Amino acid sequence: MGRAHARAFLSARSVYVLSPAPVLDLIADQDAEQAAAAAAVLGFARSTGDWRRVVVDPDVDLVAIATPNLLHAPIALAALQAGKAVYCEKPLAATLEDATAMVAASEAAGLPTGVGFTYLHNPMIGLAREIIASGEIGEVTAFRGAHAEDFMAAASAPFNWRCEPENAGGALADLGSHIIAMARYLVGPIDAVSGRLSTVHRRRPSAGGALRDVHVDDQADAVVGFACGATGTLSASWIASGWKMGLSFQVTGTKGSIAFTQERLNELQLFSSGGAARTSGFTTILAGPEHPGYGAFCPAAGHQLGYNELKTIEVEAMLDALAGRPSASKDFRFALEVEQIADAIRRSHRDQRWVAVR
Amino acid sequence: MGRAHARAFLSARSVYVLSPAPVLDLIADQDAEQAAAAAAVLGFARSTGDWRRVVVDPDVDLVAIATPNLLHAPIALAALQAGKAVYCEKPLAATLEDATAMVAASEAAGLPTGVGFTYLHNPMIGLAREIIASGEIGEVTAFRGAHAEDFMAAASAPFNWRCEPENAGGALADLGSHIIAMARYLVGPIDAVSGRLSTVHRRRPSAGGALRDVHVDDQADAVVGFACGATGTLSASWIASGWKMGLSFQVTGTKGSIAFTQERLNELQLFSSGGAARTSGFTTILAGPEHPGYGAFCPAAGHQLGYNELKTIEVEAMLDALAGRPSASKDFRFALEVEQIADAIRRSHRDQRWVAVR
Amino acid sequence: MGRAHARAFLSARSVYVLSPAPVLDLIADQDAEQAAAAAAVLGFARSTGDWRRVVVDPDVDLVAIATPNLLHAPIALAALQAGKAVYCEKPLAATLEDATAMVAASEAAGLPTGVGFTYLHNPMIGLAREIIASGEIGEVTAFRGAHAEDFMAAASAPFNWRCEPENAGGALADLGSHIIAMARYLVGPIDAVSGRLSTVHRRRPSAGGALRDVHVDDQADAVVGFACGATGTLSASWIASGWKMGLSFQVTGTKGSIAFTQERLNELQLFSSGGAARTSGFTTILAGPEHPGYGAFCPAAGHQLGYNELKTIEVEAMLDALAGRPSASKDFRFALEVEQIADAIRRSHRDQRWVAVR
Amino acid sequence: MGRAHARAFLSARSVYVLSPAPVLDLIADQDAEQAAAAAAVLGFARSTGDWRRVVVDPDVDLVAIATPNLLHAPIALAALQAGKAVYCEKPLAATLEDATAMVAASEAAGLPTGVGFTYLHNPMIGLAREIIASGEIGEVTAFRGAHAEDFMAAASAPFNWRCEPENAGGALADLGSHIIAMARYLVGPIDAVSGRLSTVHRRRPSAGGALRDVHVDDQADAVVGFACGATGTLSASWIASGWKMGLSFQVTGTKGSIAFTQERLNELQLFSSGGAARTSGFTTILAGPEHPGYGAFCPAAGHQLGYNELKTIEVEAMLDALAGRPSASKDFRFALEVEQIADAIRRSHRDQRWVAVR
Repeated sequence: MGRAHARAFLSARSVYVLSPAPVLDLIADQDAEQAAAAAAVLGFARSTGDWRRVVVDPDVDLVAIATPNLLHAPIALAALQAGKAVYCEKPLAATLEDATAMVAASEAAGLPTGVGFTYLHNPMIGLAREIIASGEIGEVTAFRGAHAEDFMAAASAPFNWRCEPENAGGALADLGSHIIAMARYLVGPIDAVSGRLSTVHRRRPSAGGALRDVHVDDQADAVVGFACGATGTLSASWIASGWKMGLSFQVTGTKGSIAFTQERLNELQLFSSGGAARTSGFTTILAGPEHPGYGAFCPAAGHQLGYNELKTIEVEAMLDALAGRPSASKDFRFALEVEQIADAIRRSHRDQRWVAVR
Repeated sequence: MGRAHARAFLSARSVYVLSPAPVLDLIADQDAEQAAAAAAVLGFARSTGDWRRVVVDPDVDLVAIATPNLLHAPIALAALQAGKAVYCEKPLAATLEDATAMVAASEAAGLPTGVGFTYLHNPMIGLAREIIASGEIGEVTAFRGAHAEDFMAAASAPFNWRCEPENAGGALADLGSHIIAMARYLVGPIDAVSGRLSTVHRRRPSAGGALRDVHVDDQADAVVGFACGATGTLSASWIASGWKMGLSFQVTGTKGSIAFTQERLNELQLFSSGGAARTSGFTTILAGPEHPGYGAFCPAAGHQLGYNELKTIEVEAMLDALAGRPSASKDFRFALEVEQIADAIRRSHRDQRWVAVR
Repeated sequence: MGRAHARAFLSARSVYVLSPAPVLDLIADQDAEQAAAAAAVLGFARSTGDWRRVVVDPDVDLVAIATPNLLHAPIALAALQAGKAVYCEKPLAATLEDATAMVAASEAAGLPTGVGFTYLHNPMIGLAREIIASGEIGEVTAFRGAHAEDFMAAASAPFNWRCEPENAGGALADLGSHIIAMARYLVGPIDAVSGRLSTVHRRRPSAGGALRDVHVDDQADAVVGFACGATGTLSASWIASGWKMGLSFQVTGTKGSIAFTQERLNELQLFSSGGAARTSGFTTILAGPEHPGYGAFCPAAGHQLGYNELKTIEVEAMLDALAGRPSASKDFRFALEVEQIADAIRRSHRDQRWVAVR
Repeated sequence: MGRAHARAFLSARSVYVLSPAPVLDLIADQDAEQAAAAAAVLGFARSTGDWRRVVVDPDVDLVAIATPNLLHAPIALAALQAGKAVYCEKPLAATLEDATAMVAASEAAGLPTGVGFTYLHNPMIGLAREIIASGEIGEVTAFRGAHAEDFMAAASAPFNWRCEPENAGGALADLGSHIIAMARYLVGPIDAVSGRLSTVHRRRPSAGGALRDVHVDDQADAVVGFACGATGTLSASWIASGWKMGLSFQVTGTKGSIAFTQERLNELQLFSSGGAARTSGFTTILAGPEHPGYGAFCPAAGHQLGYNELKTIEVEAMLDALAGRPSASKDFRFALEVEQIADAIRRSHRDQRWVAVR
């Protein structure tokens, strides 16, 4: 993910005419030699074996964090304390307490922040948001979505850091955060949830081969209520055999609907109920220059963007925030709300009842 | 629906070589003149203005019920008492009590029954069931499904009998029963649910034009737990703008997955995790003679079946049951289970907690 | 195919309120015993071992021909001579000479005729025709289509009557006729063609197991010019591995386009260039009561029709013609045009040059 | 396109560990000031107003040409003469004579070349080629394809340089070259064609508003024969309303088939006839690290590549050729063959007969 960050900054530099242009200055890795090697390949000017040097370096304006989840909070808090803007991978932190502290620190300092909810920067999601906000599909009545992948579907898939609860592990934290963020972004605050987590593979082989108990969820499902009155379901699974990037959803409204899947990220399905029944149906819209963010990369519809370009758009949003321009950055507060919803789903599962989201 | 029944019996007669061949003998309508007219068009030998005459007629072996839901129980109970087999439209009854009584009566009498869960008779659903039962997709881990239509999406859609609670109204009862039945049929008993119902259009115009309060749900969502350990979500909506027959689901297993939508009823998507990653993915299987029930209608894959032919397959199952042959009929007990699950979802919504299904 | 005809007439009787209602009266098979057995199963009143008795029977109004292609002409000519209407499977005849004679005889006698171009009776094709005729997609600029199946893809697929040139064999005759008919029906007369036929499997096993030389085409491709100025490509293949009913085409116009495949026969894709680029794209229209012919079978969109119901619509058209009502029947003249185009493609292939049709 | 080239070189530098790493050194534009501005934005070290200085500059190893087609030949010939490798946008040249001279010069000099057939570098096309070459779909029997776009569909679309015959204008040259290249790449040499060109909009508004006669084709269609015995159709259209990047094709073989469309560039459809009929069908393969070229950009399937990344892969191939490594570059000779096929289609149209390629 660190590599993806670096490339996105490089790409942003050539795609956008940004002022000031971003410079890859100082890279840290706990292994100083690896840091130096990475600097050479990725084009950083300097490297260090200690992240603490980055956050206080006077030439650094923005700290990008792509470490294991446990380190998000200490790095971000130190950077904010030193007056740096922070761009952090999701989830914001390994605990709700840490996440809350990070929001408080960033808001107290008045510093710009951004979190890696990359899929929200897709031009087709931008279009979906415009359509919903403009009332083109009427009042939203439901959002039903999932983030389904299958990289842990096999019982033989090894135990890894994503399986550690203390590292914000589990499908809900890892993948569910994306569909929660999508729901929140498109339909607004969620105020009540009823969820169910399940662990299918209760033991997985560790690196050494021995079986290790798993205490996080392989999949999670919830019914949710939105503040606007809409209802919905949210699912997350990393054992969904066959799905590689099944971040998919349907938004229904009183006058139309939208459907999307990240496995076809350059398409949005739109139904509008106003037309003649004889020729009505879902329209497959192909990403093009009319959609927010696309035109910087390709001059015409049909060329299509890839995942890395969504990351580049995200970096542009972060740089906009840094420069004080209007920005589409998803900040720490947004990320905290996502975690609060995930936490409510976990509590609901534990207590077997509906839970209010704060 | 009465017309659909009659046509399905006629069609079954020419499609299958059945012994004995079904004869459309006696049709009832509360309006005797309409009954006579319908008899002429649909090819019944006799007609009557009183259903009570049908259920006791000595020449009648099988009573098919396609009346408003409130009449299902009295007709079925009278017919069973008179020793007739009964084929009834879904939902089985307007109340859980009536449904329970119908099951008791049919089982006490030892008479064959069938309920109109037509979508379960689709050859592609038969294939899905075979695949799941054979273990081809491993242990089932989740079923996520919905039945989404949009015929009540507009606030101006008129109040009708489906909006009457006493007539088993609401999206959950009307459409939810189909996706519940599908989940139950493919993955087995559901033992716990947490649901949420919502009514978006709280007043609808009545036939006379005056606005009438609506007390049934426009949409319902639930998280469910299956007895086998699988988890899932079930949704029903008749306000899902753009969907015409969105009975769709994904079944995931430890070794593969299945996906289906009734809007493409002749297709089943299958993923098997055993193959080489380089060429793996979901395979779109097109209905053909290899799939249960298809060959009676078309000699080759690609010709495709329509809804009415699914109804004909259902009628064949009923006639098989009547003749004492092995039968795929979905009987009263199956239908009662579906209603028990729907009832549990309603109770869960009311009490804001998880509810056990009996 | 005889069975499909009989069922379609039976189905038409219950689906439509037709006056006079069709009666299955007399069935012929060269084996009198088989004829009698078929009569019992399919519901014919009488049977015979000699088709010559059918065509002159005073109680017969309409003769339906579902024999091998070589017999189409003698039966049709005898029936027309006896004053009967004729409904014949495609291709019209085994030779262009026979087909021409059949048209002449039917037109001289002023008798209604129909040919089994079943796919043209699909409500979605009816919609496509309406859209094109109304100018909604502007002036048609191209039709590109194919009929691809794979039942002869394997070298081991046995030699059968479709492989006999004297029986109008080959992929162009068998399948190409469908896509030619579609092009002709939607875009109008074709006046020039340049084609290429190819035989991939030059020997196939006969019933006895011995290899037999094949002299017909496995696939055919042509570039064509329409009288209206549009251009196009037409392909036919029975060795197209993976396609089961790949009758598919795109029609482009100056203001929009249509796309269709028979493998999803209840869908039509429509693009109209008038809308805002931001939300434009192909709309997937699902068959419903708004489309010609659908409403007789299902009350709402999404239920979907199957192949046999297209056949029933075709029979209705034939019965309309018989009763003197306006009819959508594709008559002998239409079928002759289709064969003339196929013949021109064969001549073009032989002579390696463009050929005018007629 | 120049911008796309520059970005692709920059991207290649961070994506691949290349030795030597490419440096953006000297950029030319006929307007020296624009050249200087572009250098600053795109990251070139130097700029010039005269391309002749680039081709002889001692520090330049590789000349990339993204000029109007008329300039391809003079720049490439000068660069080759000066001993530089050349990377040129398609089409190779404005005339077949120029293209032939360019091949001769490059081969005489023994210098590496590359041409911008970007779509061939898609990992899914790489997979298709592997599948075909390995015999997984048996002997190829047909390739049917098209490149359909709609940017010239409206009669009001302005006359531009693509409409000038002397600048290699027309849909066949502009878009047809892509589908010809694809056919050639996947199935091998084409040796005979029969084509038809058509101009629908015979006058288009010029920049000044006056109508200007159009002498190039809006669409072209051909039946083709491959040296391997396969047959096919090729179409090109820039008036195909609704298609944005409709580079699509089907390859059929005796044991399987492949289908693809660039509008879903991260997917390949594969049918293999070996499996059980009950579960056979087209499998939708999603691009992933198992496919050639993908892994450099994304670590897992489902992330997806965009057009610009295909360009980056193309640049890597060029740099491989420059460094003497095995390379997937599509060289001048390949590009010449594409033009020879297009030329044969034009001659066939003119002479109304089949034409041999070369």
